[in-house]
Formats: sequence, structure tokens, C-alpha cells
Amino acid sequence: MKVALLGPEGTYTHQAAASYFENLEPDYCSTIRDVFNSETEVKFVPVENSLGGGVSDTVELLKEGEDTITAEVQLSIQHALISNEESVEDIEVVKSHPQALSQCEEIIEEHGWEKEETGSTAAAVEELGEGEAALASKIAAEINDKNILQTSVQDTDSNVTRFFVLNGEPEPEEKTALVLEPGEDRPGLLHAMLSCFSGHQVNLTHIQSRPTKRKLGEYYFYVEADAAGERLQDTIKCLETYADVQNLGSYSITGDEE
Amino acid sequence: MKVALLGPEGTYTHQAAASYFENLEPDYCSTIRDVFNSETEVKFVPVENSLGGGVSDTVELLKEGEDTITAEVQLSIQHALISNEESVEDIEVVKSHPQALSQCEEIIEEHGWEKEETGSTAAAVEELGEGEAALASKIAAEINDKNILQTSVQDTDSNVTRFFVLNGEPEPEEKTALVLEPGEDRPGLLHAMLSCFSGHQVNLTHIQSRPTKRKLGEYYFYVEADAAGERLQDTIKCLETYADVQNLGSYSITGDEE
Repeated sequence: MKVALLGPEGTYTHQAAASYFENLEPDYCSTIRDVFNSETEVKFVPVENSLGGGVSDTVELLKEGEDTITAEVQLSIQHALISNEESVEDIEVVKSHPQALSQCEEIIEEHGWEKEETGSTAAAVEELGEGEAALASKIAAEINDKNILQTSVQDTDSNVTRFFVLNGEPEPEEKTALVLEPGEDRPGLLHAMLSCFSGHQVNLTHIQSRPTKRKLGEYYFYVEADAAGERLQDTIKCLETYADVQNLGSYSITGDEE
Repeated sequence: MKVALLGPEGTYTHQAAASYFENLEPDYCSTIRDVFNSETEVKFVPVENSLGGGVSDTVELLKEGEDTITAEVQLSIQHALISNEESVEDIEVVKSHPQALSQCEEIIEEHGWEKEETGSTAAAVEELGEGEAALASKIAAEINDKNILQTSVQDTDSNVTRFFVLNGEPEPEEKTALVLEPGEDRPGLLHAMLSCFSGHQVNLTHIQSRPTKRKLGEYYFYVEADAAGERLQDTIKCLETYADVQNLGSYSITGDEE
């Protein structure tokens, strides 16, 4: 399956996409906007808590475009210690994206390694020299034919990134992403809109306000609801009495294989 | 005034900080986490819609730490065309951060320039060669003693980034940032919490849900309210009947000078 996604090869985005798609043929793009503009129909984009950001762009481009969310993929970010060397004892320098380095402070301090920053976790693996190790995805080690000295070296296990599959195969639907654009602002408007969800007993799992870009201080809301299909119809009718409602797609959640 | 902020010199963060602080003495840090960990007391961090993200980290680190928001600074991102050359006619290649390149597509297509990506807008200015121009902040041109061939070359004028000043001088307070942590999740809980704002006629200007990191699917809310001081006291009392409430600080908004 040909899929447009953020490159380079060997990043966590690549690992997450490989866990979801059989026979992934990646079309690597250099920005999230390029992924959305790609001629490849199926796209794979980060939506929350990614290494290096991404949420704002994704929400904005979903709102602007015609793509439909068909699945959510969750990846728990597990950094591997990757090297040309064969033993942890031979490591003196550890290199990675600044965010990955800051997520593995315990093991770095324990060994007293020197830190070196790179542009991406994948680049750290490509630039490995003697006595060096990289913090990156297991898939980056496999692609570059390097040794994995240790897996899961991050300080805590709670770093999960969420991705959306766009324009993929339809699947059973459990959740729905919506853009709510009120077009006016007054105290209590958000509260009124949310009465549609609570009144129909639909839980929200994500909400964020975003500037409309038309006028400073004018906002729209991006929400994810824990319902889809018929169960959501009355909620949407209710929301339409307060705001323009854009349905970005319904989907279920897939975990990665780790 | 010594201030910790994201480097390198000459980025839009630097420009925004220079517009707010008189006699700015920048303490440049390489990640948002490093800014928060800096021994410099006053800090300057992006909170929304920055080039290259930042929101998630800032909200998380505000929640974890003891810093107090004392001002909001808004910068409208205006890319200047910067070069060693003295005329637009001599430009063949334009270089910048991928996001800045994508924001100036009209002028690039009009001239048929070749595009080259750099790690930051500031780096593009530092790496300028013959026949090249960079898209970056005016302050980057001044620092590097380059020519500004044209100002405000971005496609639209609606790209505003918001920054917070932490632990600065107290000022008149108009807005307040809060973290609301319910500790349980049920349909309608967010609606119930927001009834505190609508009931006391306080408008929300920003809301986002964030994973707690303790348990997948457990969320807290980061909100910005259009009130401070006594006017907000009853709202906070009401919120405390539903959630743990953390007050991150009250502040007013300053625009940049452009």
C-alpha cells in the first residue's frame, strides 16, 4: 500500500505506519503540509504528542482539506540504544533529537555519556561513528543494519503518540473527529455546544480551540467524540444549531505491536 | 534583563522577546524543556501556533513546574527576504525552515526560485551564499549584517504566534491560565466544569485537553479565561467542586511593535 508520511525513513512515524499497513510503500514528505498535498491518496499523519510537534498543522490541514480520517494508530515511543559497537561499555557519546535525549536522562547520567544533538532520531543512526550510540526507533536500527544494544531505554513508559490514517480502508467506527466553527463568540457558547454531547451522553476524548486565522481572537474547536454513526446523528443536529459542523471522519483505534 | 528563551539568535522567538524586554540579555536554550530548567529566573516560551510547534511542551512544563505566567506577547510572523545580494534580480535560490518556505509560496513561484531547506530560519541567514536569499526575521538580518531586500513576503498576514513571559514583573491582569484535572472521566464532566465559566459569565479564549501520562485515555484540561483577580474567584471555587485547579498565572496581552 502506497502511503504518504513524514520522512525520513526510520523515524517513529515510519515505525507506526509499518505497524498498521501491510506491505507499506512509503512516500516520504518533508513537512506535514507536503503529506496533505501529496498525490498519494492514503496519508498517515501525527495528531497528538508527537516528537517534534505536528498537532496544530494536522488539525488545520484536516479542516482546510477534503481528506477523511479512517483509523487512529497509537504508538508508544520506546527509544532503543543503537550503535556500531557491540557492547554498552564501548559507548562514550550518545546522539539523538533533543527531545529524545531529554527523555532518556537516567541512562545517560548513569553512564556519564556525552550528549550530541541531531535533527531527527533517524539522522542520529545514520551519522553513527566510533564509540557512539543513537537513541531512535528499532526500525531505524534495522534499516541501517546497526546493533540494538538495549531496548526501551526511556525514563518513563507513558509517551504515546497518536496518528491518523486518511482515506484508508473503512473499518468499524467507534470515534469521530469534528470541527465546530461558531462564527460568533460569547461567554457560555462552548458550554452550550458541549450540552449537545452531554445531553446525548457522548463523551469527548479530546478538545482544542484553534485560532480561525480570519480574525485575531476568533476561534474554532477541534473535538474527538467517543461515538460514531447513528449514535452521533442527534448530537451533530444539536451542534448545528450553534455552529458550522465539519465531520472529519469516523474510525477506531489500533495499537502498535510492541 | 536576563531571559531564558529558545535559540538560536535571530529566530522569531528572539524577535518577540526583544519587542517585550528592554535591554534583553538572552540566555539561549536548545529545547523548551531546557528553557524551563534554566537557572535564569525570567523565561520566555511559545504557547500557540509557533513555527515548529511548542504548545504541548509548554503546557506540560507549566503544569509540572512552579513558574508563573506574568505576560502574553503576540508576534505576527512576517518573513523578510534577506541576502548578501543587493537586488531581488540576483536571487536564484531561496532557503529557510520548511514551514517558512511553505508560507511564502507565492513570491517563490513568481520568481521561479529554487528552494533549499534549513533547520531554522536563523540558520538560513547564517548559511547565505552567492545568489541566495533567506526567509527569516528582520532581527536575523540585523544580527548577521545582511541586506533586507523585501519585508513581509509571506502569502497571508494571519500567522500569529503567542508567547508567555514567566516570572516577570507583575502587570495589570486581564487573563488567567488554569489547569483543570478532574481525576475521573464521565460523559458530561467537561460540560459541567464549563458551567462554572458560563455561570459566572467568564469567557474562555483557549481550551485544550492533554493526556495525563499516568494512564492512557486520562485527560486534563488547559484553559485560558478572559478574567483575573476577584472576578475569577467564584469561578475557581466552582471549578474546585469538579477538579483539582492549578492557577498558572494572570497576565495581559502585549502586541509586537510591527
